[in-house]
Amino acid sequence: MDNDAYLDKYRSYVRLTEERLLTLCDRYLPEQAEISRAARYSLLGGGKRVRAVLVLSSCELAGGDVDAAADYAAALEMLHCYSLIHDDLPCMDNDDFRRGRPSCHRQYSESTALLAADALVTAAFEVIANAPLSADSRVRAAAALACGAGARGMLYGQELDKHFEHHRADAEQLLSLHRHKTGALILAGVQLGCEAAEAPSMLRQPLETYAREIGLVFQIVDDILDVTSSTEALGKPVGSDAENEKTTFVTLYELDGAQAMAQQHNDAALAALEPLGERADFLRRMAESLLVRNK
Amino acid sequence: MDNDAYLDKYRSYVRLTEERLLTLCDRYLPEQAEISRAARYSLLGGGKRVRAVLVLSSCELAGGDVDAAADYAAALEMLHCYSLIHDDLPCMDNDDFRRGRPSCHRQYSESTALLAADALVTAAFEVIANAPLSADSRVRAAAALACGAGARGMLYGQELDKHFEHHRADAEQLLSLHRHKTGALILAGVQLGCEAAEAPSMLRQPLETYAREIGLVFQIVDDILDVTSSTEALGKPVGSDAENEKTTFVTLYELDGAQAMAQQHNDAALAALEPLGERADFLRRMAESLLVRNK
Repeated sequence: MDNDAYLDKYRSYVRLTEERLLTLCDRYLPEQAEISRAARYSLLGGGKRVRAVLVLSSCELAGGDVDAAADYAAALEMLHCYSLIHDDLPCMDNDDFRRGRPSCHRQYSESTALLAADALVTAAFEVIANAPLSADSRVRAAAALACGAGARGMLYGQELDKHFEHHRADAEQLLSLHRHKTGALILAGVQLGCEAAEAPSMLRQPLETYAREIGLVFQIVDDILDVTSSTEALGKPVGSDAENEKTTFVTLYELDGAQAMAQQHNDAALAALEPLGERADFLRRMAESLLVRNK
Repeated sequence: MDNDAYLDKYRSYVRLTEERLLTLCDRYLPEQAEISRAARYSLLGGGKRVRAVLVLSSCELAGGDVDAAADYAAALEMLHCYSLIHDDLPCMDNDDFRRGRPSCHRQYSESTALLAADALVTAAFEVIANAPLSADSRVRAAAALACGAGARGMLYGQELDKHFEHHRADAEQLLSLHRHKTGALILAGVQLGCEAAEAPSMLRQPLETYAREIGLVFQIVDDILDVTSSTEALGKPVGSDAENEKTTFVTLYELDGAQAMAQQHNDAALAALEPLGERADFLRRMAESLLVRNK
């Protein structure tokens, strides 16, 4: 797969996700409610849709119905968006901008943002419950999403992130923070793809290892970009980690060390895909693009 | 069914719910996370468990397995508890007390309370996804819960409630507010009970009408108690509605009018149960107890 073919494929997954999100918003987030309008403002405001693309590409790799899996992909993006809205609130990171636009509570109000995010997490589970896949697939998908998103997954990561604003994290704690905060939903991406395709465990295990590794690559590169990129390119302020005296992969390992570490986790991701042969080419390209991204 | 038999039954439903909540907390809200400890603080802090009792009694009425339905009952209480925690936050009602104890964000912190509630809503859907019932029952239960809790249900009610802090509500708007804010989860109670029992629609329709009516009774009596009861009896400040210049059933209809209205909705609830005969006796007693409650 050359780079053009990869980009075409990526864009087609994003397009499918965006279309499905619109359809599902009309069904579950009707515009007469302000909280629905606020949810749409944040949800439909762009983004890389990495998690959705993982759902769709894992599903396709496992021979599943990509169109049906788009409901799971959309649900995961809804859940991710809810976590960003709550993360931006004044009592959390107090971020005024997200993706180059005012964050939800700045555009609307704090109470509206709170409830808009609540509406998104609820809609995510409603979308899964009503997806055009078998009931067995849907309950397993809901369980996987809840596990990744809950107090043993992403939310625990958000707690750790808040905690380590005021406490110095060591290397192990930083890894645990990111495995929970970002990694758990990246992992849920391939899990939802596998549930959509009802994939056998010989496919699931390599895909899950791959997801765990690229989840770390993603975060390490985030930390690097906070030092090396520009506010314009990222659509959010750079240098905020240093300003907040946050422990990051860069503060622990310097730029070169962090870059080497990202490379190492990328290698581990690729090694996991080895047994899957050519059909994992898209995921290989995707790992690379996460490693060398500049925004 | 005499009053003692009713109370015994009610207590047995509450006991089953509390036991199941403890088991499920150990599984889904492990105590090493502070957000889990905060979630347990609010979740296991008592309450009437009206919604859980509706799940269990509807399930039993429809001939289902009450023990299996306890997972749905627990999930609904988790979801209700999350809504209370977010409702108490400074950007919402800014309430310092709940059930006679400091509210979650007063006992912990605002960020911990935010995430604790998020953990509860997520756990609610995880509990349903993994409940010991058929996959068909579980996806329908998840869909019903999400529909009642989301932007077309409870969350829209929370938005209306916030909106009408600053705007005068007329009678129709007040009804809509409460049908969404409180009514939607009361309705979800009987729906989850019916899903647990895989009840036929000839049972569902009377039970749903009953739930809609007692949901209003519940709220009207709440408004009455805010005027007539004591802070000690309620475990929360009385007179807060008047202080906040809130439109309530009492401000619209005076005490006598509100009392008559509660009676009228109670009568409608009982009328709906007519076709179900004796087996609905528990629900009849329950409606009465909601009507005459003093806390």
